[in-house]
Amino acid sequence: MSEIDVLISEVGPRDGLQSIDTIMPTEAKKAWIQAEAAAGVREIEVGSFVPPKLLPQLADTAEIVAYARTLPGLTVAALVPNFKGAENAIKAGAHKITLPLSVSETHSKANLRKTHDQVLDEVRKIVELLDTLPADQRPSFEGGLSTAFGCTLEGIVPEAKVAEMARKLLELGCDEVGLSDTTGYANPKQLRRLIKLIWSEVGHDKLTGVHLHNTRGLGLANALAALEEGITTLDSSLGGIGGCPFAPGASGNIVTEDLVFMLDAMGLRTGIDLDALLRVREVVTEALPDEDMYGFTPDAGLPKGYNAGGWGVAA
Amino acid sequence: MSEIDVLISEVGPRDGLQSIDTIMPTEAKKAWIQAEAAAGVREIEVGSFVPPKLLPQLADTAEIVAYARTLPGLTVAALVPNFKGAENAIKAGAHKITLPLSVSETHSKANLRKTHDQVLDEVRKIVELLDTLPADQRPSFEGGLSTAFGCTLEGIVPEAKVAEMARKLLELGCDEVGLSDTTGYANPKQLRRLIKLIWSEVGHDKLTGVHLHNTRGLGLANALAALEEGITTLDSSLGGIGGCPFAPGASGNIVTEDLVFMLDAMGLRTGIDLDALLRVREVVTEALPDEDMYGFTPDAGLPKGYNAGGWGVAA
Repeated sequence: MSEIDVLISEVGPRDGLQSIDTIMPTEAKKAWIQAEAAAGVREIEVGSFVPPKLLPQLADTAEIVAYARTLPGLTVAALVPNFKGAENAIKAGAHKITLPLSVSETHSKANLRKTHDQVLDEVRKIVELLDTLPADQRPSFEGGLSTAFGCTLEGIVPEAKVAEMARKLLELGCDEVGLSDTTGYANPKQLRRLIKLIWSEVGHDKLTGVHLHNTRGLGLANALAALEEGITTLDSSLGGIGGCPFAPGASGNIVTEDLVFMLDAMGLRTGIDLDALLRVREVVTEALPDEDMYGFTPDAGLPKGYNAGGWGVAA
Repeated sequence: MSEIDVLISEVGPRDGLQSIDTIMPTEAKKAWIQAEAAAGVREIEVGSFVPPKLLPQLADTAEIVAYARTLPGLTVAALVPNFKGAENAIKAGAHKITLPLSVSETHSKANLRKTHDQVLDEVRKIVELLDTLPADQRPSFEGGLSTAFGCTLEGIVPEAKVAEMARKLLELGCDEVGLSDTTGYANPKQLRRLIKLIWSEVGHDKLTGVHLHNTRGLGLANALAALEEGITTLDSSLGGIGGCPFAPGASGNIVTEDLVFMLDAMGLRTGIDLDALLRVREVVTEALPDEDMYGFTPDAGLPKGYNAGGWGVAA
């Protein structure tokens, strides 16, 4: 597989679908994931191992994980809220599991119904389980630092607290941590500062990805800042669907299509064929005809004479 | 007046209103401009001195300029397509006039119905006129390099051509040049490169501002790149209304409200009170009830605990 500069991790099938009421049929999810992988997307968060009672939209996650594993070259990621979810994700064969820890403890209690100590207990148990697995069956395990840039309930989240939680997650045995702008509060300066802080605390290799929202329109500006700082994995959602249903007003992932356009235009390789990616929208629209699909690039179309690999460099 | 880090030049009354069919009543324009100046906006492009036959929406520009001049501390800018327009702008008392020169000559012919040589002739005549004025009546004169990042008609616009046109405009006597992403084709890397190129050709003080569009969602990412490069003036439009009616698909200025939110959150001073700015939307909506007003920050609201002057720095 050809080399890439930036790994785009598509989170639409998880973060997108969990935040809309319509339940996408399992076959449509498979078609979506298949089409996106075929367009060159190398990592997809395909679902979340939460009780179906809480999120019936994602009740088929185990089946989706098993299917997605059959797609060549695709890293199959899943969210797990707790030990039980991790057990199920491992059973299903996820390549990567992410457990979100809300740095705002108020949000943690509202979102996961757990205090920090209770979340960290789950992490400890998950690592114990992972340690019993043979290396080739062990998924990578990320601790996602939610509300890292501020919280709709608490307001400002102290950066020292983010760093403390990062350290704890890694000490317990997470392979890496991620910074998550759950609430769409992040700005480029804050992002640069927080990335540097976390790196100084735990090392560059322990933080490679950020999960940004576009709630206040700063999604791509933040993505740019993260990239320029040295982040190499960016989460985004096809058509920008999705968000966090437990943080009111905090909807809206970065639109994958717009992100790929920006990276392409800057000459950064993602491995994704933008034309093919734009066609994937049809698969989603067909299955979810009543849902809005966002994206400036899809609306405006590509520039005249455009091709990926850097724009405007002709002298 | 307090010091600022970034000058936001509001272009809604010109770039916004010229691209919609509804004609905003003169009194409503005055109320809009008054309210925005009162919110702390220090420069507003209030209209364009084009023949009323072509843009009846802006037929009252002379009256608007005269009114805007009564607002304390406000720099009153106007677009002029040619010598005749500049004459009228000077008569009306504009503090700043901008003549757009499309670097894509195809676009120049379509937009201004003039070749490059013809546009440069107008520039020469305008400078001759300016040179006859006493210093305190002489507006500053900017040459706007339109389609600097690509053209909907020509595709890629060679960067050497942009630099050549910048040199010519300054040699003829423009006080400065601006880079204009008329078509919404710019990306952050290209923007950084082109700013550096122009600076290396004509000097830092001759290029301080960029006019960006959000056509493909990259508006704020581009604004961030320009700022970090050292640009200090950014054009934007309240509610994101506007665009270029002669470049199909190239609508959509940066939303002033989202831009101010980003700058505020980064601790960069604009002199603008964001709460007051958000209230200005009502003035526009009342006068143009059928027009869409855009903006992520207005939709989502401000973060909990937010105040301007840098977000998230608490340790």
